[in-house]
Amino acid sequence: MKLVTYKENSLTHVGLLTADDKKIIPVTEAEKTLLGTALIPDTMIGLLNGGEQMISLLQELQEKFVANPSRTLELEAVQLLAPIPRPSKNIFCVGVNYREHLSEVEDVLDNPNIPKFPVVFSKAPTTVIGPHTMVKRYANIVSQLDYEVELAVIIGKKGSEIKKEVAYDHVFGYTIINDISARDLQFRHGQWFLGKSCDTFAPMGPWIVHKSKISNPQELEIECRINGELRQLNNTKNMIFDIPTIIETISSVITLEPGDIIATGTPSGVGLGFNPPKFLQSGDIMELRIEKIGVLTNIVEEKESS
Amino acid sequence: MKLVTYKENSLTHVGLLTADDKKIIPVTEAEKTLLGTALIPDTMIGLLNGGEQMISLLQELQEKFVANPSRTLELEAVQLLAPIPRPSKNIFCVGVNYREHLSEVEDVLDNPNIPKFPVVFSKAPTTVIGPHTMVKRYANIVSQLDYEVELAVIIGKKGSEIKKEVAYDHVFGYTIINDISARDLQFRHGQWFLGKSCDTFAPMGPWIVHKSKISNPQELEIECRINGELRQLNNTKNMIFDIPTIIETISSVITLEPGDIIATGTPSGVGLGFNPPKFLQSGDIMELRIEKIGVLTNIVEEKESS
Repeated sequence: MKLVTYKENSLTHVGLLTADDKKIIPVTEAEKTLLGTALIPDTMIGLLNGGEQMISLLQELQEKFVANPSRTLELEAVQLLAPIPRPSKNIFCVGVNYREHLSEVEDVLDNPNIPKFPVVFSKAPTTVIGPHTMVKRYANIVSQLDYEVELAVIIGKKGSEIKKEVAYDHVFGYTIINDISARDLQFRHGQWFLGKSCDTFAPMGPWIVHKSKISNPQELEIECRINGELRQLNNTKNMIFDIPTIIETISSVITLEPGDIIATGTPSGVGLGFNPPKFLQSGDIMELRIEKIGVLTNIVEEKESS
Repeated sequence: MKLVTYKENSLTHVGLLTADDKKIIPVTEAEKTLLGTALIPDTMIGLLNGGEQMISLLQELQEKFVANPSRTLELEAVQLLAPIPRPSKNIFCVGVNYREHLSEVEDVLDNPNIPKFPVVFSKAPTTVIGPHTMVKRYANIVSQLDYEVELAVIIGKKGSEIKKEVAYDHVFGYTIINDISARDLQFRHGQWFLGKSCDTFAPMGPWIVHKSKISNPQELEIECRINGELRQLNNTKNMIFDIPTIIETISSVITLEPGDIIATGTPSGVGLGFNPPKFLQSGDIMELRIEKIGVLTNIVEEKESS
């Protein structure tokens, strides 16, 4: 089950992808036609807040659709937004969570050792943009713009003090996040927050894949290409702290809520890691792929938009 | 003009304080009685999103009330909540923004120099609690619980790339935040976020004072007492980066929105700064006072609540 948020005629809706990933089933419309009900909220946050009941309804909808297809939309005919276009709090992010990435950036870290505890920071909700949207360049103040492909975990069930053993009970699904980073701002401001939180610095999508479709999220190939050149290629099995550990750590002191997003860190191959560094330039095309999820493509803007 | 969010009969409302700070004018009810309209939203975020028009209406309401008092509530008869009980994104926080505070904590900082640029981090919305509410102790994992009195700026007008000269146009008003910090978590997790973002770690209030009532926010006495003992006593004039500089810096890359909260840093005298340190213990009473705003009182919980 893959869920999208999309815009049609300037209205925002939630959709289900068809099995071939090529068409969108408009959820609210299809629910009316196929189930005769109006129980599923038409926003991703609303749907996530609905819990298990919503997943059952969506599965029922999918089955009915296969037997008796209702109207679909071509993916190309609509604008895909980030699956959660406006999170209701900052995105949780885990830093230096792949060993080889730690090695490539150790020169710029205050503490270059393998972390004993997850490094957690945040990105403001105003960073979020959808697929094929422009990432701002901030050429006047940023000269070290960088990309980071990351597996993002979407929380589906509220909880605190969640133990590793039951962590996946609180996961709804997965998506891709590009943790765009202005390295110069990231380091000159002491804490990473500002250089990670500029408007447009969290391309997200293209959709949320329900956890039932990913048997092992710690065994997914993860890659990033810039203008077609392979920069990052790794596997989520190489995380220093796995998803259950991250969820246990954060929820030991912070209540996790449906719609919360946790970006789980990036593997080696970021621009900063090359010698000389390969920072992003205007017009660069970033293609981020994670196995069983899809491809998230965004472009660095050509000129300052202001 | 002082604005509160309060609970009466388990419903949450916005109220205006009377001139003596002793009673609450229920805004929605008074608007109906005194102005005959229903234009002012009954949530602080809704009211802030209403912009200048809401401020005019509130001023009109206040004038009408003075001439012809409508029903009021005793402050003691209701439960005050944080003025913004659930911010729609993380709280922006500025670190080490008073010189003497930098000196007292320099031993634990990776970079103990006076920052050339504001250090910005965030606290999750789930940290927010109101006056007289318990701060969780987390005794199983936290042994270095600390207090930090801070002047918090409430944004009233959306903007990006806001210049210092017009920064106050974007400010709605001010309140007090206690930036509770688990020092052990703050430092062992690399970034400060987690140790600053535990549930209940942002007592806020007791109300928002509109900027029209504070002629110079950079000339306010700021203090914190623990069980009556004076620990922090300083003046907001001693900030390293003043409010306009902080707003200019954050908004240079992040769009600020109505309801955004910026905690501007704490002066010296935190528990960590003493030798030996004076960390918070169960039952400690924290009284934070900022001139022209008021007093924010919270207590550290006696026992683990779980």
